[in-house]
Amino acid sequence: MDASVGIGMLGCGNVGSALATLVDEHGADVAARTGVELRIVRVAVRDLAKTRPVTFDDGVLVDDPTAVVNDPEVDVVVEVMGGVEPARTLTLAAFQAGRPVVTGNKELLAAAGPELFDAAAKAEVDLLFEAAVAGGIPLIRPLRESLAGDRVLRVMGIVNGTTNFILTRMAESGATFADALAEAQSLGYAEADPTADVEGLDAGAKAAIIASIAFGVRVVADDVYCEGITSITPADIAFADRLGHVIKLLAVADAVDGEVAVRVHPAMIPKDHPLASVRDAFNAVFLEGEAVGELMFYGRGAGGRPTASALLGDLVDAAVNRRRGTHATVATLRDARIRPLDELSSQFYLQLQLFDRPGVLADVARVFGDNGVSIRDVVQQPLRDEARDVFITHRARESDMRATVAGLHALECVDRVGSLIRVIGQE
Amino acid sequence: MDASVGIGMLGCGNVGSALATLVDEHGADVAARTGVELRIVRVAVRDLAKTRPVTFDDGVLVDDPTAVVNDPEVDVVVEVMGGVEPARTLTLAAFQAGRPVVTGNKELLAAAGPELFDAAAKAEVDLLFEAAVAGGIPLIRPLRESLAGDRVLRVMGIVNGTTNFILTRMAESGATFADALAEAQSLGYAEADPTADVEGLDAGAKAAIIASIAFGVRVVADDVYCEGITSITPADIAFADRLGHVIKLLAVADAVDGEVAVRVHPAMIPKDHPLASVRDAFNAVFLEGEAVGELMFYGRGAGGRPTASALLGDLVDAAVNRRRGTHATVATLRDARIRPLDELSSQFYLQLQLFDRPGVLADVARVFGDNGVSIRDVVQQPLRDEARDVFITHRARESDMRATVAGLHALECVDRVGSLIRVIGQE
Repeated sequence: MDASVGIGMLGCGNVGSALATLVDEHGADVAARTGVELRIVRVAVRDLAKTRPVTFDDGVLVDDPTAVVNDPEVDVVVEVMGGVEPARTLTLAAFQAGRPVVTGNKELLAAAGPELFDAAAKAEVDLLFEAAVAGGIPLIRPLRESLAGDRVLRVMGIVNGTTNFILTRMAESGATFADALAEAQSLGYAEADPTADVEGLDAGAKAAIIASIAFGVRVVADDVYCEGITSITPADIAFADRLGHVIKLLAVADAVDGEVAVRVHPAMIPKDHPLASVRDAFNAVFLEGEAVGELMFYGRGAGGRPTASALLGDLVDAAVNRRRGTHATVATLRDARIRPLDELSSQFYLQLQLFDRPGVLADVARVFGDNGVSIRDVVQQPLRDEARDVFITHRARESDMRATVAGLHALECVDRVGSLIRVIGQE
Repeated sequence: MDASVGIGMLGCGNVGSALATLVDEHGADVAARTGVELRIVRVAVRDLAKTRPVTFDDGVLVDDPTAVVNDPEVDVVVEVMGGVEPARTLTLAAFQAGRPVVTGNKELLAAAGPELFDAAAKAEVDLLFEAAVAGGIPLIRPLRESLAGDRVLRVMGIVNGTTNFILTRMAESGATFADALAEAQSLGYAEADPTADVEGLDAGAKAAIIASIAFGVRVVADDVYCEGITSITPADIAFADRLGHVIKLLAVADAVDGEVAVRVHPAMIPKDHPLASVRDAFNAVFLEGEAVGELMFYGRGAGGRPTASALLGDLVDAAVNRRRGTHATVATLRDARIRPLDELSSQFYLQLQLFDRPGVLADVARVFGDNGVSIRDVVQQPLRDEARDVFITHRARESDMRATVAGLHALECVDRVGSLIRVIGQE
């Protein structure tokens, strides 16, 4: 077979440069192992004059991405430009021209995944995207291939390194959210505008992709309920610790009776759960398969070289398939009802500050009961200089819990309604 | 394409029955997703009359395994009989007949892996064996495919559930090895003859397979140094705890300057290491890739259904490839020097009981120094009713440490030389 495979890159920022470097460093190994020689023949960039950490031969850098996807020398397209457009249009154009695409672009897949999967299937070419979720951690390939004969029931992931770093700092040093965020920013783990990370939107995009592949169902970012970590306090973390739990921002996807439920929110998980020991900027995805039971995949969810490692794994796969005239099985996604948050159930942790009067607990308990929420534990603890009550519920519907919180706000004996956090893995 | 793929099974014990059940339960899902209908057409068993948890159509059960690998209706062979022979001969016969083989047989691969890889490559058919290492955990596929563009530097795995259960019980309840083993046996986690598990031989076979695939090098079970957990005492575990560590039985494989080192032994690892929180009969494999950094894969390493899940994933892959007239890239293994244990280095924990005399510590320290082993910490602690000294060394060569232990045995002031355990992850 012809040993040389031409790579066309769309974009050459942090991740793209890391990929080009890795192709340079490991290309000989890859050729020895697979018989395929990877050659970067075109790289589309916005600014041809910009200095980059990697150099290319004359003529490789171009400023017209359309030329890359249509170049006859390009066998496989690698999209590392980020964002939905023009990445979407260029990816569709590559398929149109019969070229497979490797991408690490989570926004693109979370917004237009189902459309792109269909287009790749129609063109009979690969669309590989291991790098789009959880960076360097092999997750998409195990879901698509290793578990091809199993049924995934639930996926729970720590898929945003920034928020995991912040929560780890808060738990280990007692820092406030604001201080931990500032530290994350100074270390380069958080961006100047941290909204997408701390509000759970980045995790939401990844949750949509994970749910699509795990359950074979069309899920896009807009289907995912997202709640961030900005209101988590040191007191919540201290209470969680006393209850034998840690607080993590989780992306949770469930398959229930042919429907799916996907959401991102902070959650209390028991300290002996495998996800609880995932610290700092690491990511991990925990899943339950019907036959395989519990699995977890752990590693670096971001960073140039880990992401480039995942891209290169896909690139080798696409290149080998290309030379053999075959391609990976594209997931056929079915339509399924996305179960709205209100219909889901969970245990809850609710923190309240109550005025110290006789009958207060009875009044509070009545609001829970009137809304069909059953209390499992009440923990009254002095925390610094004030007393706080923490209520842990039995499993309750989200809509009922929301009504309970509204009712508590209306009670005169309630000074302040604090954090409401879902509790996972107790029942 | 012809939708039906004929499966021929060699063996139908615990795992084989679980696989047949899973094919029955999930076959329709698999067909919907991949277009391939899996049909079990032949099953070779030793005793046709035996009652099994799964029933087959008339004529499917046969007592001649050779007939299965040569049956024209069989498209893919699944070997779940265990042991090296006749599994090896039958696997080679299947390749000879142009049939791919899926296996979960670690003894076979650890003994004859390189020979079988060569034969599969020559016959241009698949040899897939995800189930042979760490049961249901996707590990072989990520190593072969996801990390195809990376370089694996080190793999450390908890790959034997029996010993991990025993060590977990010893750590959490203070049980002796004998009591924890008896509990494991009563729960069905350990066999009546536990030798292969507790002496590290089962883990050694898996270490050979992992090292072969991770580094692309010919490694067989005989190349692996194996040390079990039978001499680990509650005192060792208590000391490890005080030092912020836990004791785990690890399979460790390193790539060093073109050579490889593979061994199985108990090791102390820091409590915040991802492997430290792997409890009970769970398995986990931790690895370091040059670009990807740290990764860990966690799940059930044994059991009928988890293992069947991995077999079925491979079976779907082999069936789809078969229908497309293609096959996975077979690893080309190179010969490399297996670095003997004596040349390796590690930190060590050594427990000594010393007679309480002046100058004793100086005598002991001199033996370490004379053998080129540098002491990092000495911890003298009363443990129950006797005093024990624990020495933690800096990184030292295995041969030097062995000479040190021999020297200490010869010292009059040494009452007893206790456990010698390697310490990982401190430097």
